[in-house]
Amino acid sequence: MILWSELAWLGGPRPAQNVALELSGDRIESVTTDLAQPPPTAERLHGLVIPGIANAHSHAFQRALRGRTQQAATNGSFWTWREQMYALAGALDPDSMLALARATFAEMALAGITLVGEFHYLHHDRGGTPYADPNAMGAAIIQAAQEAGVRLTLLDACYLHGGIGIAPQGAQLRFSDKTAEAWAQRVQQLKPVEPMLRIGAAVHSVRAVDPDSTATVADWAARRRAPLHAHVSEQPAENDACLDAYGATPTELLAGAAALSDRFTAVHATHISGHDLALLGDARARCCLCPTTERDLADGVGQARRLAQRRVRLALGSDSHALIEPFEEARAVELDERLATGIRGSHPPSELLEAATGGGYESLGWAEGGAIRAGALADLVAVRLDSVRLAGAPAADLIDALVFAGAACDIGDVLVGGRFVVRDGVHVSLDVPAQLRTAMASVQA
Amino acid sequence: MILWSELAWLGGPRPAQNVALELSGDRIESVTTDLAQPPPTAERLHGLVIPGIANAHSHAFQRALRGRTQQAATNGSFWTWREQMYALAGALDPDSMLALARATFAEMALAGITLVGEFHYLHHDRGGTPYADPNAMGAAIIQAAQEAGVRLTLLDACYLHGGIGIAPQGAQLRFSDKTAEAWAQRVQQLKPVEPMLRIGAAVHSVRAVDPDSTATVADWAARRRAPLHAHVSEQPAENDACLDAYGATPTELLAGAAALSDRFTAVHATHISGHDLALLGDARARCCLCPTTERDLADGVGQARRLAQRRVRLALGSDSHALIEPFEEARAVELDERLATGIRGSHPPSELLEAATGGGYESLGWAEGGAIRAGALADLVAVRLDSVRLAGAPAADLIDALVFAGAACDIGDVLVGGRFVVRDGVHVSLDVPAQLRTAMASVQA
Repeated sequence: MILWSELAWLGGPRPAQNVALELSGDRIESVTTDLAQPPPTAERLHGLVIPGIANAHSHAFQRALRGRTQQAATNGSFWTWREQMYALAGALDPDSMLALARATFAEMALAGITLVGEFHYLHHDRGGTPYADPNAMGAAIIQAAQEAGVRLTLLDACYLHGGIGIAPQGAQLRFSDKTAEAWAQRVQQLKPVEPMLRIGAAVHSVRAVDPDSTATVADWAARRRAPLHAHVSEQPAENDACLDAYGATPTELLAGAAALSDRFTAVHATHISGHDLALLGDARARCCLCPTTERDLADGVGQARRLAQRRVRLALGSDSHALIEPFEEARAVELDERLATGIRGSHPPSELLEAATGGGYESLGWAEGGAIRAGALADLVAVRLDSVRLAGAPAADLIDALVFAGAACDIGDVLVGGRFVVRDGVHVSLDVPAQLRTAMASVQA
Repeated sequence: MILWSELAWLGGPRPAQNVALELSGDRIESVTTDLAQPPPTAERLHGLVIPGIANAHSHAFQRALRGRTQQAATNGSFWTWREQMYALAGALDPDSMLALARATFAEMALAGITLVGEFHYLHHDRGGTPYADPNAMGAAIIQAAQEAGVRLTLLDACYLHGGIGIAPQGAQLRFSDKTAEAWAQRVQQLKPVEPMLRIGAAVHSVRAVDPDSTATVADWAARRRAPLHAHVSEQPAENDACLDAYGATPTELLAGAAALSDRFTAVHATHISGHDLALLGDARARCCLCPTTERDLADGVGQARRLAQRRVRLALGSDSHALIEPFEEARAVELDERLATGIRGSHPPSELLEAATGGGYESLGWAEGGAIRAGALADLVAVRLDSVRLAGAPAADLIDALVFAGAACDIGDVLVGGRFVVRDGVHVSLDVPAQLRTAMASVQA
C-alpha cells in the first residue's frame, strides 16, 4: 500500500510536504518527500500525518471514574480519590474489565493513540483469590486491545503491600501476588503470541513493593530486556513515608534495587529531588508525565524542565483517563510549568510531540515505532486541518498549532501496523459510544 | 416555539428531566419539568440543554496568534509575547478586524458561546490617527458579532499610557484617545441600536490609565449603570510598578478612583493581596478568570478559591483564544488550583458551570440571561451526550462529566435570543473554517 499526504511530520519544527509512504506488512518501507504529484495508486490521507501516539501510562478501568469523583470531592485529595478508585476496583471482574478496557482503548484509538502501556495491577478475584486462569484479568486487557485495534505493552505490576510495612487490605488484596517470586511465576505464563503485544514489568510504587522485591522484579525485566515502569513520588506523603522508613527517596530506593536503566520509566516523578534527577539522568532512564491526571489528582506541577535539562526523555500518559486528549497532555507539560515558573518556552512544540510519539514508543519497548521513517512500524495518524481549531494555521506553524490547539476530535484516520483502525473519525469495527455506555452500565449496576 | 429536552440544567448539581421550554420572542416564557411526554408541537433538542455560555473576556483579534507564538518562545514571558501581539495589532485595519472577529465569534458560537464581552482597545489608525469614523474598529466588532449571531457587550477600553508615566509608542499609539474625556466623547457616539448589543467601559490597566482618568471612566460607567472591566494584577511586574509609583496595589488604586462596584469585573486578578480580595468582596465586585490564557502567558495560578471565600462571583473568558474551549476554561479554575494547593474540590462542578453562564452574563450587564428560567433570555445550548467524552455518564453525574470532560466539539445546537445560530454542530449562516482561513490569510499577507 502506498499512502500519500500533503503534509507529514518527520520530526523537527516543520512538516515535510507532498509525502509518499510505501508500506510493506506492518512497516513503512520508504518515505519520499516533495513529490510533484501523488503516486497513481496511492491512498490519500487528509490533513497532517504524524506518527501514532503512545499512551505510556494507562489504568484502563479508571475510565469508569470519569465525571464521577468531582461532585463529592470537597476538600478532598489524592487519598480520598483513591478510596473511590478502590471501590471501583473491588467491583470488577474479567468481563467488566474486558468491556471497560475495550471501550477505553477504542476511545484512545479515536484520539490517535496506537500504542497503550497498560500499568496493570488488578490481578486477582475478591479477597485476593487467584482466578482459575491466574492471568484472567491480564487476558481481558490483551483481548480488549486486540478488539480495539491498538498495540499493547502490558506492564504487569507487582503490588505486595498496602503501604510501607502494612499488609494489603480491601481492594488491595486483589492486587497482591504475596511475593515477588509468585508475581514472576504468574507473569511468566503471559505469552506475547500476538505481534501487537509485548509484556513489560512494573513496580507499583515503593509503597507497595519493598526493596528486595523490587530487585526481583528489576532482575526479571533485565533478563528479558523488558520495559520496567514504576509510580515515583506522585505525592509528598509517599516521599515522607519512604524517607521515614528507609532514609532514602523513592528514586534512591529504586536505584539501590538496580531498577534504574534505559528501560526504566519513572511515572509522574512530580516531587523528586535534585539527586533523584541526577540518578534518573545518569541511568538514561525515562519519565512519563500524566498532566491531566496530575491536575485532577492535585499531584502538583511536574519536573519536565529539570528532567529535560538532565536529558531524561519524556513520555506521556492519560493515566486515569479523566480526559483522553493527547494534545492537551502534550501542551500541559509546558503550560503547567509556565504557571509555576512564569517562563514561556521551556519545551518546543516538536519536543512535546516527540514525547507523545517516539518517547512513548521507546518507553514501552517499541523503539522501532513512533516515528515516520523507513523501517519503522506503520502506526500513523492523520489529523484533519479543517476544524475551527486548526483552520488557517500556516504550514510553517502547524506543529505549534497542533500541539497547542489540537483536540482528539480532529483525528481523521488512524493506522496500526499498516491497517486502518479509524477512518474519517470513526472506528472501523466498534461503535465506541455504545461500547462506553455498556461498559459504564456494567460497572454502575 | 416550544423546545423539549430529556435533560436540562436549571442550576444545582443535577439536571432536570423531561423539560419543555416555551419561548416568546427572545425570551423563555415558561419552563416545565417532568413532563410525561413531549408537547406535540415541540422541537426536540438532543442531549443536555444548558444556558448559553458567556465569554466574559475576549480580544478577538488575538485569535490570529494561535499556534504562532510557541515555537519562538524559548525562555520567553508575558512581555515577549506582548511584542508579538503588538506586531499583529499594528498590522490590522477595520476590514481585517471584521474578518478576524467574525470568524472568531463564529468559532465561539460553535463552542456554545452566546454572549461575548469584547475588551476592545485597538481604536485608531496607524500612528494614532483617528479613522473618519472614530469608532470604525468598534463598528467592525459590532458587525462581526451580528454576522456571527452572538450577543455582544462591547467593553470599550480607555488606554492612555505605554506604562506608568510613559507615553504610548508603536502599536500603543493606536490604542490611545490621549485623554479620558476624549475616550468618553468617542464612546458616546457608539449607539446600541441593536437589541443584541450593549456598550460597557473598560480601564485597560493601571499601566495604561492613571487614577484621575480611571475616575473619569468609572464615572461614565456609573452614570449609565454600565459594566466596567479592567485588567488587574495579571503579572507581578504590574504590581511592582504600581507600588513603586503610587504606594498602592492596582486594586487599591482602582478602589481609590471609585471604580469598584457590583458592576466592576477584575480580569485575571492573579497576583492580588489579601487586602485586594477584601476590597473586591466588600464592593460585591466580580472577577473574570481566563485560565487557558493564564497558562499560555505564564501568568500564574489564579485566586479562585480565595475569591469564592470572599463571595466574589466568577466569570470566565478565553481572552487571547489560544483555545476556545469553555469547559476546559471552567475546569481549569479548579484543576490549576489543585496543582497549587494539593486540595481537590474547592469548586463544585455546578459552581464552575454557573461561572461560565450566569456569572458571565451578569459581569457583562445582561443579568436577565445566563439561566434557564421563565423570563430569561432564550440563549440556550444543547450538548450532545453521545460523544466518547460523555457517553455512559449517568444522569446524576452529568454536570460533573460535562464540566470535567466536555469539549467544544460536543456542542450540538445553539440558540441566541430564541433563534438557532448553530444546528447539529454547524453554524447556520457561516462556513466557519473558511472564515478562519480567509481571516488568517488576510493577517499573514
